[in-house]
Amino acid sequence: MTSLTSQSGDENSQFGLANIPFGVVSTKADPIPKIATRLFDQVYLIPNLVANGHLDQLSPSTRSSLFQPTLNQLASLGRLEHKSVRKALQELLGDDQSKVKDKLATYSVNISEVIYHLPVTVGDFSDFSCSRDHVLNAGEAVMGVRQLPPGFLHFPVGYGGRCSSILAPGTFVRRPLGQFRSPEGVTFGPSRAVDFELEVAVIVGKPSAFGEPINIKQAEDHIFGFLLLNDWSARDIQGLEMNPLGPFNGKSFGTSISPWIVTIDALEPFRTTGPDKELAPAKYLQNQQSQSHYSIRLNAEIEVDETRYVVCESRFEWLYWTVSDMIAHQTINGCPLNAGDILATGTVSGSTPGSHGCLLEITKGGKEPVSLAKDVARRYLEDGDVIRLTGSAGIPGTQEFVGFGTCYGELCESIRIDQV
Amino acid sequence: MTSLTSQSGDENSQFGLANIPFGVVSTKADPIPKIATRLFDQVYLIPNLVANGHLDQLSPSTRSSLFQPTLNQLASLGRLEHKSVRKALQELLGDDQSKVKDKLATYSVNISEVIYHLPVTVGDFSDFSCSRDHVLNAGEAVMGVRQLPPGFLHFPVGYGGRCSSILAPGTFVRRPLGQFRSPEGVTFGPSRAVDFELEVAVIVGKPSAFGEPINIKQAEDHIFGFLLLNDWSARDIQGLEMNPLGPFNGKSFGTSISPWIVTIDALEPFRTTGPDKELAPAKYLQNQQSQSHYSIRLNAEIEVDETRYVVCESRFEWLYWTVSDMIAHQTINGCPLNAGDILATGTVSGSTPGSHGCLLEITKGGKEPVSLAKDVARRYLEDGDVIRLTGSAGIPGTQEFVGFGTCYGELCESIRIDQV
Repeated sequence: MTSLTSQSGDENSQFGLANIPFGVVSTKADPIPKIATRLFDQVYLIPNLVANGHLDQLSPSTRSSLFQPTLNQLASLGRLEHKSVRKALQELLGDDQSKVKDKLATYSVNISEVIYHLPVTVGDFSDFSCSRDHVLNAGEAVMGVRQLPPGFLHFPVGYGGRCSSILAPGTFVRRPLGQFRSPEGVTFGPSRAVDFELEVAVIVGKPSAFGEPINIKQAEDHIFGFLLLNDWSARDIQGLEMNPLGPFNGKSFGTSISPWIVTIDALEPFRTTGPDKELAPAKYLQNQQSQSHYSIRLNAEIEVDETRYVVCESRFEWLYWTVSDMIAHQTINGCPLNAGDILATGTVSGSTPGSHGCLLEITKGGKEPVSLAKDVARRYLEDGDVIRLTGSAGIPGTQEFVGFGTCYGELCESIRIDQV
Repeated sequence: MTSLTSQSGDENSQFGLANIPFGVVSTKADPIPKIATRLFDQVYLIPNLVANGHLDQLSPSTRSSLFQPTLNQLASLGRLEHKSVRKALQELLGDDQSKVKDKLATYSVNISEVIYHLPVTVGDFSDFSCSRDHVLNAGEAVMGVRQLPPGFLHFPVGYGGRCSSILAPGTFVRRPLGQFRSPEGVTFGPSRAVDFELEVAVIVGKPSAFGEPINIKQAEDHIFGFLLLNDWSARDIQGLEMNPLGPFNGKSFGTSISPWIVTIDALEPFRTTGPDKELAPAKYLQNQQSQSHYSIRLNAEIEVDETRYVVCESRFEWLYWTVSDMIAHQTINGCPLNAGDILATGTVSGSTPGSHGCLLEITKGGKEPVSLAKDVARRYLEDGDVIRLTGSAGIPGTQEFVGFGTCYGELCESIRIDQV
């Protein structure tokens, strides 16, 4: 395997002027959550910049949105306003005059000092199934058959995820209790098959109206930005519950996200093509834009006893369905999108060994443990395991390099059954 | 069939002093949404009562919650506070002194003058499948086999519904566009199989914490109240999409609710027993309370050209799983509940003809149209059809009579494909 560091640079280098993402943070000195951006290893509290007259070129409504405790209001203003804020920040923070630099330093804190909060209040969370390789591999692991679900080639299949268990970045995840099939029959207890899923998600910006589908050509106008998402999954609980209504308790025990929303404008330079469609989709899913994908490296590491092991190197542009497809499909029935909604891609897997985005695929449903080191192997996750998802686009060391930082999550032991 | 009117009384009689539900309304004269209650045909704007000193016995935090534009904050305060508000309103509005009555009249408007709003901001909407008869009938209609899903006897099976398409009471629903199997193969167009589903839902009051299951004994402490819910379903869209991730676009085009949240305290007198469990569930689902159900009549009518036809008479207490079961199961994996969350029961069906809560069951998947009148029959719904769901408990004409009013929804034509 190639070295992860050489591909993704050090994390700070992912947050140069080409990025300028948005998040919500607090510090010990300033415990009220505030909208912020990150430049290299410094985090700037945006309301402080506004209050001190550094972003006066923005419209009053845009400036007002930056004082909110979440990014929903800014997101709802639409892509032109997102552009204007990012551009103003790039100009301000890119100013090389030492006087300005000294002044700005008073509004920044080191990345090591911030506490992350949920960047948006999530009104709805949809999780899709956009990777052809993932559904074939997962289907084979569970049912022994490599077969696409009936809808797969017609539209991005999705389900409704749980908003209340989307966690502020850094929060640990508890191994869930639940019911599942075991050699003893249907059993209740701590899940024995906790898995991660490497996913990318879009955060909705401009909302859409009830009853009005979003045309695929305008779909990206409704995107505020992207982040990484770990859709923790208890495969055994999921296995018993999901016929016929889909995943529920096997997913809703925790979802981790990366702390910074990388704007769609920051990813614009990395447009690329994706796989050809095997079947011409319905007209509402025909995207005339040939570069409808984004070229993004995605990686998953399991950290055991402070040693990190790369278990997946995948790419965003391998997905069969795009984020525009997801938006067009989600709204074709008139379902409205609201600012802050999350639409996630499902596990992003490739076709080769080493490119599979969850243990269900990597270990073939737990049947073939993956060896991480001598004496360290995993069928599924153990208590104390840490999952780090990372993603970056462009060439490290150049001006055109942008990354997501880390979607971090640690699995902790379940509560005891007798405590329920 | 027995007469619907004799069973449920006229609607106003469902809203005597024994009810005192909560909703959010505005009027032409006062267009800002306000928390309200209903007594017979009069609606009282509660912040106006508070502001004029009529509810001074309530705590300051409770009074403050009554000035919010939704019921989330009141709901979050927990059952003791809900009781205190309802009791204070019962005392105030039940005062027989003509002086008080005249004074109160200045804070009320006739039910015909109010515009309904969503009573809560819904953070998460879970829809369960609690009716044994429904899953057997629906399974038979779709797959030709009467067979319970693998999890059914072990726990209430559920899925994540869509919050953004829950509609303010009275809003029309558009026939959705989507993809489905047809004699011509997989087709894109307006759904040809739009159905209703007669459901009951609970609105969560006191929230629960991440990682902490709610013990079934305390489950009802987390309920603010109940309402009726029409889970509009496009059976053809659902049929193509739901394997393996469950229903999505076949459901998210609109969900109707009844306007008034009937508190769990108002339903307390109607406790009853439910069906025996065929299989002892896991301990976290063993409810020691024998009267864990509520005796509520439920009805569904289709209105065609201003004539109403009763198509279902069912009962809430026929459900196999209870609302406490739903709450205990939803949280057993650590998933938190927030005030305003909706947990719905799924279609409430009985075992006899005339007691089936959706057309999928009534018409056996569209194969046997139901005759409503001479020359009026339905396989599925037609544009312009109105669905009215009603529910009531107790004996009309007595002090112990409580109802939900009407969950109303009209199906309108789809948008044209060339408008997408």
